[in-house]
Amino acid sequence: MPFSADQLVEHLLSSGARNSESSAIRDLLRHAARKGLISLGGGIPAPELFPIDRIIEATAAAFDEFGARAAQYGLTEGEPELREVAARLAEEDGAPSLPDQILVTTGSQQALDLLGRVLVDRGDVVVVDDPAYLGALQALRKYEPELVGIPMVEDGLDTEALETKLRAGLSPKAVYTNPNFQNPTGATLSSDRRAHLARLADQHDFLIIEDDPYAALRFSGENLPSMASMSERVIRVRTVSKTLAPGLRVAWTIGPARLIEALAIAKQAADLHTSTLTQHITARLVGDAEWFSNHLSSLAPWYRAHCDALMTGLAANFGETLTFDPPDGGMFLWAELRRELPPGLDTADLLPVAIEHGVSFVPGSAFAVTTPRPAHLRLSYVTASPEQLSEAAARLAAAIDAWLQP
Amino acid sequence: MPFSADQLVEHLLSSGARNSESSAIRDLLRHAARKGLISLGGGIPAPELFPIDRIIEATAAAFDEFGARAAQYGLTEGEPELREVAARLAEEDGAPSLPDQILVTTGSQQALDLLGRVLVDRGDVVVVDDPAYLGALQALRKYEPELVGIPMVEDGLDTEALETKLRAGLSPKAVYTNPNFQNPTGATLSSDRRAHLARLADQHDFLIIEDDPYAALRFSGENLPSMASMSERVIRVRTVSKTLAPGLRVAWTIGPARLIEALAIAKQAADLHTSTLTQHITARLVGDAEWFSNHLSSLAPWYRAHCDALMTGLAANFGETLTFDPPDGGMFLWAELRRELPPGLDTADLLPVAIEHGVSFVPGSAFAVTTPRPAHLRLSYVTASPEQLSEAAARLAAAIDAWLQP
Repeated sequence: MPFSADQLVEHLLSSGARNSESSAIRDLLRHAARKGLISLGGGIPAPELFPIDRIIEATAAAFDEFGARAAQYGLTEGEPELREVAARLAEEDGAPSLPDQILVTTGSQQALDLLGRVLVDRGDVVVVDDPAYLGALQALRKYEPELVGIPMVEDGLDTEALETKLRAGLSPKAVYTNPNFQNPTGATLSSDRRAHLARLADQHDFLIIEDDPYAALRFSGENLPSMASMSERVIRVRTVSKTLAPGLRVAWTIGPARLIEALAIAKQAADLHTSTLTQHITARLVGDAEWFSNHLSSLAPWYRAHCDALMTGLAANFGETLTFDPPDGGMFLWAELRRELPPGLDTADLLPVAIEHGVSFVPGSAFAVTTPRPAHLRLSYVTASPEQLSEAAARLAAAIDAWLQP
Repeated sequence: MPFSADQLVEHLLSSGARNSESSAIRDLLRHAARKGLISLGGGIPAPELFPIDRIIEATAAAFDEFGARAAQYGLTEGEPELREVAARLAEEDGAPSLPDQILVTTGSQQALDLLGRVLVDRGDVVVVDDPAYLGALQALRKYEPELVGIPMVEDGLDTEALETKLRAGLSPKAVYTNPNFQNPTGATLSSDRRAHLARLADQHDFLIIEDDPYAALRFSGENLPSMASMSERVIRVRTVSKTLAPGLRVAWTIGPARLIEALAIAKQAADLHTSTLTQHITARLVGDAEWFSNHLSSLAPWYRAHCDALMTGLAANFGETLTFDPPDGGMFLWAELRRELPPGLDTADLLPVAIEHGVSFVPGSAFAVTTPRPAHLRLSYVTASPEQLSEAAARLAAAIDAWLQP
């Protein structure tokens, strides 16, 4: 018996598993979850906004109405009641869909994984926001695409830069973007850019993956239409993680029927189906249009107050040495350090110093695709209280001073 | 715009997605879910045994105890409370495990998918029961292993046949088996064969994937020990789908710490984590040792009565023309038609005739790995009532007569 069990596993791991190391940042942030630390790191939605009483009620009501079916095996595509509600919401987005264009997934992370699985062969080109949502990068990279980052500008993905590359011969299978309050930059894709991107998809025959978890967290400006109202080549990924509670693990994807069919076949092998019970809870809560609308209205003021507290704290502690574009909603500030960094220095190296000072964040490099982001920090304002956010800004300033001290 | 959205998707699908067709049998059974049909098809656990009141209670109690944390984002590895309960059950199996040897998954289907992902590179040898659980074949085949089927005999996987192949140079990464009331054959791996297989794993350095969903559904004979008590090379896949309710989508995998770490990294990209809420519900129900033990005791008589009803019905309608080994538990009879089949005829062709006669089953070919099973039928006794099971046997006999009529 030459190997211990752990050694044997190491020896037997697939090439993909052997190469995927646990993220150093993730490990650091996990171990940093200690008392007294103020987190500007995670994108954890505010627990005080979870409709706990309604979730408990909906659990009992689902069993009342459907009996054991609410906890039985279900269709891979999702519970019919939830797909109907999702179809109604899609119509409100200005892009009606049939139920067979909707697949329920175990959170939107699963949708991204399944999209990678059914669309990407090794070397296929996929265009992504640069910087981009880390979870999307993780999901897609497993399928070994050639990821092409298109810069995020103040009003979202730079569609002119994309068009230039398309004209030069770039031929992506899909373009992945967060249209509202993008993670990590907070930028919102303007109406003009939405129309432009939809037009490019039609002209160049690619799919748009519109991953839109934050739309309901808008606290400034007007709602903008989904690109699904502009092109049939749009896949909408929607979730209740930020509007109800992430622990339900309920999301859904809306797209062409042929795609949904392929995703469902992949999902069947991946986890058979999403929790029937949490689907029924979600269908009841989102399906109660009046309650849900009131609930959504209650979210924005909370997020605005937290965003304001962090912006005020940063302005007071940094002045012009840390800049950001104020977002219209969502969870994040994308801040750039305007002090001169010695060559080779990166905010990833600031993180352990910041943790020593009692504050965490996610360094820009975690989200970088093509352009390095050594001077950026993603700052989340949703986990800490307004008072803590002020204190966090002061701690961050002290940490940066200590870090850059000659 | 040369393509419609559906045509474009067809054009863009990955090679894997293009090649995986929806199973004809699955489609047939789905469309057969009409009024009056008696299903011997699915492995759907008895809904009247779901502890619905306890699930509702546990939902409220989880929020009482943990507040919003019961619906918040959680660790990819699983909620600590559930991993502790799982560790306690592992100890009762005679193979204690540390919490970091346990990963919670979205049903055991996800465990099989993740195991394929982290262990299998294209062409790697994986040994499986022949015939084998269809969901395991679906999950593993995505990673393009060379699947080698080892025949199921009356007392489980034929470990002598495996040893012969190992001595001849077969070098599998893993052996996948259901040790108790195997799906589809109902066979249980004997104590001697468990010890033999564990010894072979140690000698030949492979992992054993012990996928054991039915252990608690034993209605005859003695419980046999998990192979994890005999070798460190054993991965246990456990689920509450058959003991509490499948709609919770809660399972867990126990194995070497290095493997659990690799599975967790893969799971993070696949769905971040399993529903926090259904994990807390499960931890409360399974963690209430006295209640859970009483609940498990209530399952066996129900399953026994249903199995008896089907066996009696088959004996009355078929005599010696349809044979099976009576199982000691679980959900399935693996029946072999003893009438002469014309060349080329397969029970897959019987299925549409049976559906016309108002009864469904799953043809043997669905589970075949190496050996074809043209004369076999998997008959589930868990969806229909005892009265329906008698009637189903009569309908099946009539369907077979009609099918074989010259």
